[in-house]
Amino acid sequence: MQIATPYLMFLGDVPDALAAKTAYGIKDWRPEWCIGQMRLPGCKADLGIPDLTLPEALAKGCRTLVVGVVNAGGVLPDHWVKEIVAAIEAGFDVASGLHVRLGAVPAIAEAAAKRGSKLHDVRHSSETFPTGKGTRRPGRRLLTVGTDCSVGKKYTTLALEKGMRDRGLDADFRATGQTGVFISGRGVAIDAVVADFISGAVETISPAAAPHHWDLIEGQGSLFHPSFAGVSLGLLHGAQPDAFVVCHEPTRTTMRGVAHPLPTIRQVIDLTAQLGALTNPDIRPVGIAVNTQALAEGEARALLEALSAEHGLPATDPVRFGVETLVDRIVADFAEA
Amino acid sequence: MQIATPYLMFLGDVPDALAAKTAYGIKDWRPEWCIGQMRLPGCKADLGIPDLTLPEALAKGCRTLVVGVVNAGGVLPDHWVKEIVAAIEAGFDVASGLHVRLGAVPAIAEAAAKRGSKLHDVRHSSETFPTGKGTRRPGRRLLTVGTDCSVGKKYTTLALEKGMRDRGLDADFRATGQTGVFISGRGVAIDAVVADFISGAVETISPAAAPHHWDLIEGQGSLFHPSFAGVSLGLLHGAQPDAFVVCHEPTRTTMRGVAHPLPTIRQVIDLTAQLGALTNPDIRPVGIAVNTQALAEGEARALLEALSAEHGLPATDPVRFGVETLVDRIVADFAEA
Repeated sequence: MQIATPYLMFLGDVPDALAAKTAYGIKDWRPEWCIGQMRLPGCKADLGIPDLTLPEALAKGCRTLVVGVVNAGGVLPDHWVKEIVAAIEAGFDVASGLHVRLGAVPAIAEAAAKRGSKLHDVRHSSETFPTGKGTRRPGRRLLTVGTDCSVGKKYTTLALEKGMRDRGLDADFRATGQTGVFISGRGVAIDAVVADFISGAVETISPAAAPHHWDLIEGQGSLFHPSFAGVSLGLLHGAQPDAFVVCHEPTRTTMRGVAHPLPTIRQVIDLTAQLGALTNPDIRPVGIAVNTQALAEGEARALLEALSAEHGLPATDPVRFGVETLVDRIVADFAEA
Repeated sequence: MQIATPYLMFLGDVPDALAAKTAYGIKDWRPEWCIGQMRLPGCKADLGIPDLTLPEALAKGCRTLVVGVVNAGGVLPDHWVKEIVAAIEAGFDVASGLHVRLGAVPAIAEAAAKRGSKLHDVRHSSETFPTGKGTRRPGRRLLTVGTDCSVGKKYTTLALEKGMRDRGLDADFRATGQTGVFISGRGVAIDAVVADFISGAVETISPAAAPHHWDLIEGQGSLFHPSFAGVSLGLLHGAQPDAFVVCHEPTRTTMRGVAHPLPTIRQVIDLTAQLGALTNPDIRPVGIAVNTQALAEGEARALLEALSAEHGLPATDPVRFGVETLVDRIVADFAEA
């Protein structure tokens, strides 16, 4: 999936900012691609960028209308369909994170066919992939893994891309989730791939590269999550990472959506290294990323110091304290490899 | 997916028996459902059951035309479509293991819509599942796992169903692959499910049951296979088995389709127990099933004895020597649980 940039961000008339979470994520990480927003009367989300009409957005170079919002009830409302069709007729591609496929709405499908526009459903996978081969391929790879879902893997991976590029390293973020696909304009929502092709899809989005190039692969789920561990394992095997960063949220008491307790960071390090060795025997941890939002700064620093000492790894909150220490470790560990 | 039985087996004009492998599997395990076969001129496969016309099959009670063959090139040939449409018009449902979806062929889709017939594509999943919850549910469960793909997991599971039922135990085969779905008339081809729902789909096909009821769940792939380990792990977590049997093929030198070496039976036992404990801390191995087809009988017996001694578990070739020792162990281990 390759989405043409820049974007006009469609927010519809969502009732709050949370319903536009994906759109906010895109705007945070790719402000240069988010030229303008299109809001309908009553919209309660605001990305803080210019409100543009379709002709204005086209004049500013926008190529794709991005539907980075969730709609209630799973049915695309008629007044959204009308705007999407108008955008297609004006010459836009459309990329959507909705559960419903754009092409399943006849008016949208017809308009796109007539105009030759591309419809991207990032939550679905229409691409077919080969099955994974597990063969080592050149280039370096880092994967973010987690003690749970939604513990900052995407944020950490994107922050590492920025931090490593700032340090002059050749590094590319590789998206495996829908927001990540919008942010990078490419990738695959790995949880939407047919089960047989999980590792093959990851091999496809992170192909052989130059020996010192880094692919920074966005992790998903957790090897300890009873709902999603299969996805996490296929992702680990397909990524065959040389390095991994463990992401953690310290206040959570059960794993997201289920009654299971959280694993320890030590358990995640050990199991990731154990299982990852199947496709990369040289796999090693290079750091810990903690979302300390719920802690006071002193508490946060104390926790990170304790984790760093316990595991012999740099530990940071990428949002609060940056990723410098992680990049230092990566540079040191892979200086001559 | 619930397929109406009995079946009329459609073999088309396949060039050899291998192309009808699925049909042979169904006939071996459910001869009572395979009332007749329908072959076109030039067909080189023969299930050894009566050749029936559509009216003859209907008169004998057949409900579903089963397309248990593979076609070359991925396109359904016109002369097959013609026969399938005729079957629908005569009142049959159609169940297919083809890569192409029946409903993607306009003539078939139209005929089915007109007649109200069901089209089952066992290689595809149109069902939606909840995500897995990982909560313990009543009833007992056994999962077959493997050192590799295609090492006899389906056969072993079906043989256990028969052996346990013969012993008076309440046991049901639960299909997770396409041939298994045909054989049991229900189930899900788990490798065709969207990645996020692997464990949830398994929870769905093996729901809460009476305390002494056994679900015998067909395994897929291997935790050590770099292409499919994610599927195997999701299946393990969703199955939350109390017991597992390790299936093995002793002459294989690399894992199917890839360059990776085979794990040892010990490695498979240990990793299955380790990872399975996430959703069932009481998980334990109850036996080893070896496909000894390539070995002379003396060699086969010696190998099984050695494996049994090494692992402290019954070891058998279910095809050659039956599953009595496995059933003995299951009965002994779970006598009072």
